[in-house]
Amino acid sequence: MPTTHLAGPILVLGTGLLGTSVGLGLSQRGLSVWLSDPSPTAQTVAQDIGAGTVIVPGKPLAPELVVVAAPPDVTVAVVAQALCDYPMSTVVDIASVKGSILAGVQSDPRITAAHLARYVGTHPMAGRERSGPASARSGLFTSMPWVICAHSGSRGDAVKTAEALAIDLGATVSRMNAVEHDDSVALISHFPQVASSLIASRLLSAPGHSLALAGNGLRDTTRIAASDPSLWIQILSHNAGALVPILRGMREDLERLIGTLADPTASGALLDLAELMGEGNAGQARIPGKHGAPPQAFALVTVVVKDKPGQVAALLADVGNAGINMEDLRMEHSAGHQVGLVDISVIPGRREELITVLSALGWKVVQ
Amino acid sequence: MPTTHLAGPILVLGTGLLGTSVGLGLSQRGLSVWLSDPSPTAQTVAQDIGAGTVIVPGKPLAPELVVVAAPPDVTVAVVAQALCDYPMSTVVDIASVKGSILAGVQSDPRITAAHLARYVGTHPMAGRERSGPASARSGLFTSMPWVICAHSGSRGDAVKTAEALAIDLGATVSRMNAVEHDDSVALISHFPQVASSLIASRLLSAPGHSLALAGNGLRDTTRIAASDPSLWIQILSHNAGALVPILRGMREDLERLIGTLADPTASGALLDLAELMGEGNAGQARIPGKHGAPPQAFALVTVVVKDKPGQVAALLADVGNAGINMEDLRMEHSAGHQVGLVDISVIPGRREELITVLSALGWKVVQ
Repeated sequence: MPTTHLAGPILVLGTGLLGTSVGLGLSQRGLSVWLSDPSPTAQTVAQDIGAGTVIVPGKPLAPELVVVAAPPDVTVAVVAQALCDYPMSTVVDIASVKGSILAGVQSDPRITAAHLARYVGTHPMAGRERSGPASARSGLFTSMPWVICAHSGSRGDAVKTAEALAIDLGATVSRMNAVEHDDSVALISHFPQVASSLIASRLLSAPGHSLALAGNGLRDTTRIAASDPSLWIQILSHNAGALVPILRGMREDLERLIGTLADPTASGALLDLAELMGEGNAGQARIPGKHGAPPQAFALVTVVVKDKPGQVAALLADVGNAGINMEDLRMEHSAGHQVGLVDISVIPGRREELITVLSALGWKVVQ
Repeated sequence: MPTTHLAGPILVLGTGLLGTSVGLGLSQRGLSVWLSDPSPTAQTVAQDIGAGTVIVPGKPLAPELVVVAAPPDVTVAVVAQALCDYPMSTVVDIASVKGSILAGVQSDPRITAAHLARYVGTHPMAGRERSGPASARSGLFTSMPWVICAHSGSRGDAVKTAEALAIDLGATVSRMNAVEHDDSVALISHFPQVASSLIASRLLSAPGHSLALAGNGLRDTTRIAASDPSLWIQILSHNAGALVPILRGMREDLERLIGTLADPTASGALLDLAELMGEGNAGQARIPGKHGAPPQAFALVTVVVKDKPGQVAALLADVGNAGINMEDLRMEHSAGHQVGLVDISVIPGRREELITVLSALGWKVVQ
């Protein structure tokens, strides 16, 4: 049984995807977990898949930690109630927005400074395009960032307990205040989400012969447009203040682009397009890659594989046998094909060696 | 030596990424390829890496096919000149826009109906985020769509020769007229490109602690923002007519979104957000997946792997040994981690079986 930083018991309020995943992860680490959800079905499903034990109404509980995993629009109420119901417990929430939740809890008439000292807002940067307890995964938080937003009145031991939750679930702790958090997720999560939806919306009336030409560019830019609207409308509405300025910035660029393309022969038009593309290059280059390396830091080796069981495995076995670590892997295929391309990212210094090895082994390396 | 539909010789005018890749692919299939480029360096590099033989000025040539692989802004001039210089040859171009090229060639004073009969516009849907002959790959067109845009005056044998080029390079032939093509690529290629640049541009002034939280959502939506501006400004300016209406549609949605988020508590605001997200869901669902299957058609199995050589290979070997075909594979990792998650897509009917097999073999399947 792995050792944990939490001692337990832990009470999870809300057994949706995230709450149930928290319960599963902590239970599998040997901690005692209690579950509660307004939906009898949801809490029973969560218990049935091993996320913990549904609490018995009226039975007194003294949890070390209460994890509020309710939808954003009821999180404030549930946090405030939990702070009152469990006077010895640290209470954390895991909603994707932090400023509005903290403000709401602070302004609750029942909540004193003593209550607030035990509250810590947190945000695990993990999720799925599916929801509900049945989609929960004990490893959902593995190697994902978990933001801890201590406020000025948070007690040190409460913050430690919140961080222990993240660490016990295999996440990486990241510390910032609620404003820094909300501005950050607006930019790196909420903005790409709505932008992806805006792109995908344009496909509604597209003819089939156009969509048949779709490549990875369209697939990548629209993948998260498949996300669940019911959760996102709450996230977006709770963080509108941080999101709107970013959208206004995009609108300015879009206006400029439309104006330029309206007369691409006008003087300065091409320069204007080049600037827009150049800004895109520079912005994209700022995103940290795996292990914090910039995306450009890895070299690509592309290999043709047949679309049948074991082909990619055999290829990667040869890569592994060569003692070369694969930093990333990507499969490319277009509709209707029985042959695929596998892009293997390696550190540039090993690229030529890998090409030589694979070619010698009879792999068709695309060059 | 593989058999080919082309007999050759083929003359490639322009030895950038695409022209050199065409030369490499045809040469490796045993066809005789001649090369020419305004840049002595570029054509020498292309010849040195095996794309063909640089033509000798003044020496008469009678190619079966002339492939114009010049930048879009000079394609019309090069095509017209080639139709005059090689009166027996089929002439194709491979520029990403077709309507403006065809109109330009038709309006050239030297060009008669007899010339036009030998011209066929084409567009291989392939490329890289790098350019130049040194980045060329003989397999660049493998399993990619290649659009053949015959015009009303194209001669049948010329169209056959153009299609033979695509087939000999392993591409899939797709037939449509210039307008259908330009509208299609505006939507599925040019629009996602500029949208990705618009998203990435917002990251220019982002604080480091924000970018450190970046996940696959931001990475996927901005990946193609790394593309080469010098080529794209030509493509965008040549297809502005088809692109602008799409951008105006996006601007309308963006305006609506900003208006809604300006007061998310207003009546109807949440419904409006739900509609926007729902339209994104529906649009994304229309993109054909591998083998034409919708993205939703595959089930996901997520496995934790250590970040060291051979791990993913060993995993996929076990998948292959189970006789289960992997439809797609995706590696997830966040900065600073030595553990990664591998998402394996399989047909839903095999998912449970795969989970059972992998778990029995000791793999940590995330569920």
